[in-house]
Amino acid sequence: MEMDNEQQLDETVHSLSDLLESGQDEEFINAFDNLHDFEMGKVYAALPARVREVAWRTMDDETLASIFDNLEIEDSDVVDLLSELPPKKGADILERMYADNEADLLQAMPARMVATYLQLLPAEDAQEMRKLIKYDDQTAGALMATEYLAVQKGMRVAEVLEKVKEQASEAESIIYIYVIDADQRLIGVASLRDLLTHPDEMLIDEITNTRVVSVGAEDPQGDVAQVVADYNFFSIPVIDKEQHLLGIITVDDIVDVIDEEAVGEYSGLAAVDVSQTDDTPWHSAIKRIPWLLVLLVLGLTTTALVGSFEGSIRQAPVLAAFITLITGTAGNAGTQSLALSIRRLSVGNDKSIAKNFFSELLSAAILALAAGITIGLVVLLWRQNNDLAAAIGLSMAAAIFLASLLSAIIPVIIDKLGYDPAVANGPFITTLCDLTSVGIYFIIAQQFLTYFVGS
Amino acid sequence: MEMDNEQQLDETVHSLSDLLESGQDEEFINAFDNLHDFEMGKVYAALPARVREVAWRTMDDETLASIFDNLEIEDSDVVDLLSELPPKKGADILERMYADNEADLLQAMPARMVATYLQLLPAEDAQEMRKLIKYDDQTAGALMATEYLAVQKGMRVAEVLEKVKEQASEAESIIYIYVIDADQRLIGVASLRDLLTHPDEMLIDEITNTRVVSVGAEDPQGDVAQVVADYNFFSIPVIDKEQHLLGIITVDDIVDVIDEEAVGEYSGLAAVDVSQTDDTPWHSAIKRIPWLLVLLVLGLTTTALVGSFEGSIRQAPVLAAFITLITGTAGNAGTQSLALSIRRLSVGNDKSIAKNFFSELLSAAILALAAGITIGLVVLLWRQNNDLAAAIGLSMAAAIFLASLLSAIIPVIIDKLGYDPAVANGPFITTLCDLTSVGIYFIIAQQFLTYFVGS
Repeated sequence: MEMDNEQQLDETVHSLSDLLESGQDEEFINAFDNLHDFEMGKVYAALPARVREVAWRTMDDETLASIFDNLEIEDSDVVDLLSELPPKKGADILERMYADNEADLLQAMPARMVATYLQLLPAEDAQEMRKLIKYDDQTAGALMATEYLAVQKGMRVAEVLEKVKEQASEAESIIYIYVIDADQRLIGVASLRDLLTHPDEMLIDEITNTRVVSVGAEDPQGDVAQVVADYNFFSIPVIDKEQHLLGIITVDDIVDVIDEEAVGEYSGLAAVDVSQTDDTPWHSAIKRIPWLLVLLVLGLTTTALVGSFEGSIRQAPVLAAFITLITGTAGNAGTQSLALSIRRLSVGNDKSIAKNFFSELLSAAILALAAGITIGLVVLLWRQNNDLAAAIGLSMAAAIFLASLLSAIIPVIIDKLGYDPAVANGPFITTLCDLTSVGIYFIIAQQFLTYFVGS
Repeated sequence: MEMDNEQQLDETVHSLSDLLESGQDEEFINAFDNLHDFEMGKVYAALPARVREVAWRTMDDETLASIFDNLEIEDSDVVDLLSELPPKKGADILERMYADNEADLLQAMPARMVATYLQLLPAEDAQEMRKLIKYDDQTAGALMATEYLAVQKGMRVAEVLEKVKEQASEAESIIYIYVIDADQRLIGVASLRDLLTHPDEMLIDEITNTRVVSVGAEDPQGDVAQVVADYNFFSIPVIDKEQHLLGIITVDDIVDVIDEEAVGEYSGLAAVDVSQTDDTPWHSAIKRIPWLLVLLVLGLTTTALVGSFEGSIRQAPVLAAFITLITGTAGNAGTQSLALSIRRLSVGNDKSIAKNFFSELLSAAILALAAGITIGLVVLLWRQNNDLAAAIGLSMAAAIFLASLLSAIIPVIIDKLGYDPAVANGPFITTLCDLTSVGIYFIIAQQFLTYFVGS
């Protein structure tokens, strides 16, 4: 790995900028051409804007397109880089990019910009883009490339190999060759490996696997990722409802999907966007403030509830000592249930929801009993007060049971309503459980109050 | 997708079991052969043990090895399936599997079993395995396959293509051809695509890219995954310190690594293992009990601390009402800092730790000020008590600031000590923050106590 840390990248950016600024365009191009596409992208994006202009004026369209194809930054930032180029040049670059990346950029642009580029693109490409940008952001259609290898059934191995050689530089993946009928319907798949190991005169049909696994253009990307991960495919074909082959999704895009989904779930649990780890302190704080304030308001409800029991606390200040223990433990159980519930929703299937709920009910009951009995015994030994021990043990068990159930069921309800269950984040659930736990605690404690006051 | 949900799989298992039980072995084989490797694995693992025995007696070793290569279950469960076979048969299957999977299984076995299989394996394979199983679980070495395509420099394109055809059925990936020198040192890579599009008589050296990106056998798998994801590679070569080519890692294994890492981080944040979503309620509860009890004990420290302020609470019961609000909000801020800190550690580089800490310090200060002022104003309007408002606002700000800092720095310390920072889970941090928040709150409140009691 010749560029496995930021320092080396910094050095490369510096030395390449220097070459450009001192007018050594040719040396720049030579050094730059030696980089991998991903590295070119990193350097290009990191160059000072003024130097970047010299850079793109020096490079040919193919190289620029390959850089834009391999920029591992947010689409909106790629759009910013693209808009540094004159519109006509931008359109030339877009046209040379892979269709899935080209469509992603168009989707990330303001409408007026899209219109400009669609007018500048060749008619055929513009028409294809109009089709592709219609697919919802999170569907297979939005992820697919239209540069794939498809051949008609009935061709011979030698002919297919000839076609592979012709299209190899265009297609995004040449590992699988898709076999279609005269109507462009997908009927099977052959691997380049099979092609290479069978005689030239054999019919492609004989080495075509007709049990081809495909996904629909409207399928959610998460489901596609699961299929590709399970089957260990390098790419998967995308079809419409009539089995027409529309495009392919390659495993490198799947890697990004899995990464993004994981970061999304993780961010949801913590109620903070962890994908931008290099934010400034100011931006990072500003992003976290809204959720903290929402939760502060929810927390004030809990405060008001505790406040309404001020009389009980005045009589038995010891009650205050156990508030944090009960809300904290219930909150922890809730966070665990929440994580399990969201994970089940993201990997599971519909029919198991009822079963899972019953399973969670039982699991929560066992946890509640274990924690309730433990804390009851501890309080008994510590404070030598039966009634206080019973009140705390009972409250703890009830609070954990309710917190677990709420945390397990809320994501399911949100999901059923058609929203992303990950909006039910950990801090929200914890704060909500604080409210229910405090309520349970003081209601139970009040029943025992007459017995243990003063003891 | 012909088997995209469990119901269809159940049906397939049933109909295939029926075929075997009624003695229709040939029909079974035909139906089974039509499945994809991954589906075969799912069916094979789901068959009743009695029927599975009929199944493996019916199948040839190649098919069985391919099933074992594609089982998407825990390695220890695969070992269980393997030990259903007679040892000699088991060794035959192991030998036919890809080296990375074979080594994974050996690593998941008890020592005595490993010894048995190593004796039964052909000497050459056993020797290779002895090398492979030495690599640590989480390193590139443990992930690599040794079935790769390598050719000596100086060969002609036609010769290389001939070699590709010969080895195509053995090698795990034929997308890249690695070019080595006489000492087996990696000097470059060529793609099958380039091979197909260049004239037969050309030297391979001319289409070899010598800027080959590789990883070391001891590199952590997470780093390898990052490189493969960034560069969009289908596979990456693994080398030793002297540049000798040891094996390759293919992107399908990387997909699994990314998945596992994400599940691990997510599980860590919630202090619950979310990878086993189909546990029984009993097992699920048993697994969650230890952490809950540890946290209960930590929580009791907080209880004791609040208890020591019983006098203050008796004087001003209103103090109790704000305990949950302050601990809750500080806990939420802590969870966010924790998630950001762990994520930074998993994607970032060393030199940025000091910078990140300073950045977190600033960000925490902004958050603390915002929440402190907000809650101070709310209390002022609600209770019309300047001193109470000051005490609550000040406590809130200090508690949030300390919680954010602790949560950001604890994972870094754990990481520096050489442990996995994810052991600092969300509930632990929240419970720890409860303790610090309560301490801060009551110390500050006591200073103001004389002013606002009775008001």
